[in-house]
Amino acid sequence: MNRIGISVKPNDPRACALLCELHKWLIERDCSVYVDHELQVCAGCSTGCDRLPVSEMPDKVQLMIVLGGDGTLLHAARDFIGSDTPILGINLGRLGFLTDTPVGHMFDVVEKILGGNLKTIRHFSLCAEVWRGDEMLASASAMNDVVLERRGHPRMIGFEMYVHDRFVFRMRGDGLILATPAGSTAYALSAGGPIVHPAIDAITVVPVCPHTLSNRPVVVPADDQIELHLVESSTESAALNLDGIELIPLEQGDRVVVKKRGTVSLVYLPDRHYYEVLRTKLKWAGQVETG
Amino acid sequence: MNRIGISVKPNDPRACALLCELHKWLIERDCSVYVDHELQVCAGCSTGCDRLPVSEMPDKVQLMIVLGGDGTLLHAARDFIGSDTPILGINLGRLGFLTDTPVGHMFDVVEKILGGNLKTIRHFSLCAEVWRGDEMLASASAMNDVVLERRGHPRMIGFEMYVHDRFVFRMRGDGLILATPAGSTAYALSAGGPIVHPAIDAITVVPVCPHTLSNRPVVVPADDQIELHLVESSTESAALNLDGIELIPLEQGDRVVVKKRGTVSLVYLPDRHYYEVLRTKLKWAGQVETG
Amino acid sequence: MNRIGISVKPNDPRACALLCELHKWLIERDCSVYVDHELQVCAGCSTGCDRLPVSEMPDKVQLMIVLGGDGTLLHAARDFIGSDTPILGINLGRLGFLTDTPVGHMFDVVEKILGGNLKTIRHFSLCAEVWRGDEMLASASAMNDVVLERRGHPRMIGFEMYVHDRFVFRMRGDGLILATPAGSTAYALSAGGPIVHPAIDAITVVPVCPHTLSNRPVVVPADDQIELHLVESSTESAALNLDGIELIPLEQGDRVVVKKRGTVSLVYLPDRHYYEVLRTKLKWAGQVETG
Amino acid sequence: MNRIGISVKPNDPRACALLCELHKWLIERDCSVYVDHELQVCAGCSTGCDRLPVSEMPDKVQLMIVLGGDGTLLHAARDFIGSDTPILGINLGRLGFLTDTPVGHMFDVVEKILGGNLKTIRHFSLCAEVWRGDEMLASASAMNDVVLERRGHPRMIGFEMYVHDRFVFRMRGDGLILATPAGSTAYALSAGGPIVHPAIDAITVVPVCPHTLSNRPVVVPADDQIELHLVESSTESAALNLDGIELIPLEQGDRVVVKKRGTVSLVYLPDRHYYEVLRTKLKWAGQVETG
Repeated sequence: MNRIGISVKPNDPRACALLCELHKWLIERDCSVYVDHELQVCAGCSTGCDRLPVSEMPDKVQLMIVLGGDGTLLHAARDFIGSDTPILGINLGRLGFLTDTPVGHMFDVVEKILGGNLKTIRHFSLCAEVWRGDEMLASASAMNDVVLERRGHPRMIGFEMYVHDRFVFRMRGDGLILATPAGSTAYALSAGGPIVHPAIDAITVVPVCPHTLSNRPVVVPADDQIELHLVESSTESAALNLDGIELIPLEQGDRVVVKKRGTVSLVYLPDRHYYEVLRTKLKWAGQVETG
Repeated sequence: MNRIGISVKPNDPRACALLCELHKWLIERDCSVYVDHELQVCAGCSTGCDRLPVSEMPDKVQLMIVLGGDGTLLHAARDFIGSDTPILGINLGRLGFLTDTPVGHMFDVVEKILGGNLKTIRHFSLCAEVWRGDEMLASASAMNDVVLERRGHPRMIGFEMYVHDRFVFRMRGDGLILATPAGSTAYALSAGGPIVHPAIDAITVVPVCPHTLSNRPVVVPADDQIELHLVESSTESAALNLDGIELIPLEQGDRVVVKKRGTVSLVYLPDRHYYEVLRTKLKWAGQVETG
Repeated sequence: MNRIGISVKPNDPRACALLCELHKWLIERDCSVYVDHELQVCAGCSTGCDRLPVSEMPDKVQLMIVLGGDGTLLHAARDFIGSDTPILGINLGRLGFLTDTPVGHMFDVVEKILGGNLKTIRHFSLCAEVWRGDEMLASASAMNDVVLERRGHPRMIGFEMYVHDRFVFRMRGDGLILATPAGSTAYALSAGGPIVHPAIDAITVVPVCPHTLSNRPVVVPADDQIELHLVESSTESAALNLDGIELIPLEQGDRVVVKKRGTVSLVYLPDRHYYEVLRTKLKWAGQVETG
Repeated sequence: MNRIGISVKPNDPRACALLCELHKWLIERDCSVYVDHELQVCAGCSTGCDRLPVSEMPDKVQLMIVLGGDGTLLHAARDFIGSDTPILGINLGRLGFLTDTPVGHMFDVVEKILGGNLKTIRHFSLCAEVWRGDEMLASASAMNDVVLERRGHPRMIGFEMYVHDRFVFRMRGDGLILATPAGSTAYALSAGGPIVHPAIDAITVVPVCPHTLSNRPVVVPADDQIELHLVESSTESAALNLDGIELIPLEQGDRVVVKKRGTVSLVYLPDRHYYEVLRTKLKWAGQVETG
């Protein structure tokens, strides 16, 4: 394992300085290193990181290291859907659910990985296509969630959900979240969805501020193809967001088709325990109590 | 009681036709009638409603009739905050929580009201001011709710809430709803807030998709002055909405001051029962059951 | 297919009369029929149902028909865990999520099944064991849910959850529900859990009135062994309930071990659609709306 | 102010030792002291607390000091409903929402109070009567909540709620909580109710595990008389609990009448801020966040 890719959070001096250190460290260990971002010069950095070679990430990279938060990792991971390349997230961000490794452990962990000692977990991704009539306007992948939502317009939108062409429900409200298990602890959780263990092959459907009292989150098999039809919306008042980034604004009549897609392999610390991460990072089920 | 104002849902042929009928009916009963909207010609209407005199609504109007849905009534009611003018909503909309009277009962009900037979309920309103540094950028009233929210931008905003200058909490998420009791059955209910009886003098604070697991709706005394400070937001990515209409886009650092304001008097059917309306209109506490 | 078992809701004249009809109808078609309940004489029944032969249900029964509600079916199904015998529920109850076939369709449906025409869905079951020190006090199966809860005592209980011997969380409150997908639309839904599609191999863990604000439902892989330790409870103030029936009262220090067990095959109408059942029977995602 | 009552958590050596100290301290300041519990001898206490005079609490007590947790205070406060006697809670318990003063501040705070320097907040109480036909079976007061619930029986109960003799809703489920604002942060919060500021004159009605999807908490004016009719329940399978203590088991047909009753005055630290207590004691709106 000696062809290493690095992806870095843009415009972040801390990430940039870390890149310089890591780059030097890897070169000393005879690795070929590929960096995927035009980098800003980092303040106080004498290693000349602005002259680091930037290259298209080759397919044959054997380990991908991401320096940043979950957002950076979500973005980088999209290019590795369906591949076996392990992705290691070094956490520079707030929470770091996917970027599991603290900065202080970076060299230790990378050394172990180069020695062949790593634990990975596969996360499946979603593919979303936007159709207007017979034309596919856009298509992209998401690791966490596909979100149909109103777009800055204070009034709600209306849409219908179908599974394998069968009507499931019609809803009016702020939107709808389709989340992978990895995404179940992100926006879907804020909107009232359940926590879904990463080993479960299911998509969680979470309504956002539904206009009816009786709507509830539903967990559906990951292999079910889901369609959303935007039936009520004024011009540019809805959008499709993937992993928190807008893909495209939508119009009334547009259809969104969401399918399970390939997996990516994330590297975790060997002693990582999923429920412990929930407790410590989300303060899930915290011990503090009502009166 | 013979000076009657009428407010009409714009661009709605049904509302327009109804206006023509009502206008004629009132004139026959020697009323002075004031119409507050430039009207579109309604299809198939031979009464010449496009030539109805449109006038600024005088202060001295003794009854205000609104033809439309709750949205039309919310809009019209803002001009009568602090006055005693009773407002009658004729429901042409979907739900009609505030516009209580069905179209079929309109003439009966108006006849009774002209005869002095009416039941009104007072609803207090909220006043929201937006401050940037020492400058007040905007200020307006709301009957249902004041909503601070992200504005089409897929990432969340961060803000702090203060009551009488004391820090209450800091939150990141989609937004925050401050609702009157009347507004507690509107957007606040969709976001998970409680139903608050109209006779209670309180503002309900409901977080929208909060990023923390431990946030909960809180009901605060209506006389408490509430301030929201937008502490985390990129350019034009937040807005303040009043009764579902955007007042102004906000920038990081902006402050929103919300205070209780005067009341309006809504006319209800004499046999109206609040909890029955909840049951029939919201299907609240419906009899259908889990398995 | 000519060896048919029948299970009947006890003490229900309607179920009893139906049994008489069905029994006669099956005998006329040369079936061997086995009835598993001591029956009460049903009022106005001249068929002599009190003299129907009651027998232990043989293993080799080829179709099991249940006359009653979901409760009757849950009870009868426990004897067929791990077998391939299809179970047909004729719905005499309120909702009938599992007892899918209305009484009026009974003979039609049974005729089709005898002709080899049937659609079944497999539901997995849970096995719960109660341990006090080294002694296993009780063990039984559940199709819907295993519920640890306080038992008539107005104060809460405290317990810890473990998965594969690793600590997950400690909670105080009214109790905890471990539900199969079939059970996700029963008590777990009332307590705020998500709807989980029957094809998903997962157990839903739903806290009941947790004393902390940050507890949330979590969906875990069905093959994970779950343990609950009752760490805080006064004498006889907690109990373990399976499918709504108390198995045993618990004491502080008791441990409950829950594992996935075999499946049962339920017969459904060929045109049954899961999400349609949710909509019609639960009024899930109903069209009626907030104001 | 020199006639002081003391109420103590029973069977708690720490409370007992504290009582001894406080008693001595008060006597030295020429106070008359009244203790309302038969006390256990506390281990290692040489002050002879078992010989402290125990007496019925006289009406004319001028300050009531409670050593214990919220449960002890709730119990003691019932005897002072409608009186002006300030009640000071010294917190020996877990949370201490009502027992605001930490043990370490006890002498300081009592000294200030004896000097006339105190801040009190009035909390209203509820009165619950249980009727069977024309007979009133029981009646008592509650400071936090009146809870109708199933009683150890694993099946749900059914009941109807009325306000001023008008039907509000019918519900099946685990129970119903009627909470004062003080009680809104106790059991009602665990069941999904909102936080209600103590200055609001309202009762919060919170369903516990309702069998329907569309039930929601509702906040009603405190002066509205609420009736609950138990319409579905088997023998002894329901009960009425007041402040977490069972008043009486209920039978089908029983009616519970709940009214607002007088207030009690609780002493708080001068710099106490309600929302800060929510944040620190409930970890409400905590800063930790979803991924």
